[in-house]
Amino acid sequence: MVEQGLYREAMARLGAAVNIITTDGSAGRHGFTASAVCSVTDEPPTLLVCMNRNASAAGHFRENGVLAVNVLTGLHQDLSGLFAGRTKDMLERFAGAGWKTTKTGAPLLEDASVAFDCRISEIKDIGTHSVLFCEVEDVVMRGEPEALIYFQRNYHQLR
Amino acid sequence: MVEQGLYREAMARLGAAVNIITTDGSAGRHGFTASAVCSVTDEPPTLLVCMNRNASAAGHFRENGVLAVNVLTGLHQDLSGLFAGRTKDMLERFAGAGWKTTKTGAPLLEDASVAFDCRISEIKDIGTHSVLFCEVEDVVMRGEPEALIYFQRNYHQLR
Repeated sequence: MVEQGLYREAMARLGAAVNIITTDGSAGRHGFTASAVCSVTDEPPTLLVCMNRNASAAGHFRENGVLAVNVLTGLHQDLSGLFAGRTKDMLERFAGAGWKTTKTGAPLLEDASVAFDCRISEIKDIGTHSVLFCEVEDVVMRGEPEALIYFQRNYHQLR
Repeated sequence: MVEQGLYREAMARLGAAVNIITTDGSAGRHGFTASAVCSVTDEPPTLLVCMNRNASAAGHFRENGVLAVNVLTGLHQDLSGLFAGRTKDMLERFAGAGWKTTKTGAPLLEDASVAFDCRISEIKDIGTHSVLFCEVEDVVMRGEPEALIYFQRNYHQLR
């Protein structure tokens, strides 16, 4: 088994899009920043999100059973930091941007490059984390595509 | 459920690192290009790879039980195309670069930005795809970090 610090340093070399994952429902509104998101299959359209099981939000996502993956652009670096833990206060986090609610009830970031509105279909626990498998109910795309990539612990912008 | 074509168009907006996933063992040497790779947890160091269950390589990965995630750089666009299906012939694919074998027996790309040498610990089938959960036995990093990102169906290079 590789040593944890070395694993983290190696993973910093795997560039990834930055997303804000949100939920709302009976357990309330929650959100966090995540880069561990990927498509699983398009039959049926399914993606996955990895989240820390010990994070305060974990129970809320389980109980609400829905989430949105909001894919960020270069305009969202500050918002990314806010949802990555600069504040734990959800009101303060969500006050940082405009949101709207769609089919599942999960908050969609108004100026996301693309937002995936999802129902959590299955949860698999692995070590400290849970993998949330999500069926995609709807997608909303806005403006010219643009990407915010996290690589080597820095933000990079792509057009 | 969102329509498949729309889902694919939306997913093109989620930028991701480009990797060549390789295996070797009793079932022989195989490899394919993939961007659906992410870290799950660092306790214990675990990553996941999504692969098409119907791909010719799927059975080989299951039987060998090991794989390497080779993270590509800007130098590897041609190699990425080769392993993405420009040829089905594994000899031809692997002839496109230099490889070495480490702990698990999976081929490591000699000039990858970083390579993760892994044992497949669990496989979960979802629709047309399998999610391979992998414990990371070793990592090899080389040179200055550099990223090859696939976004909007084009390659982009980051330093």
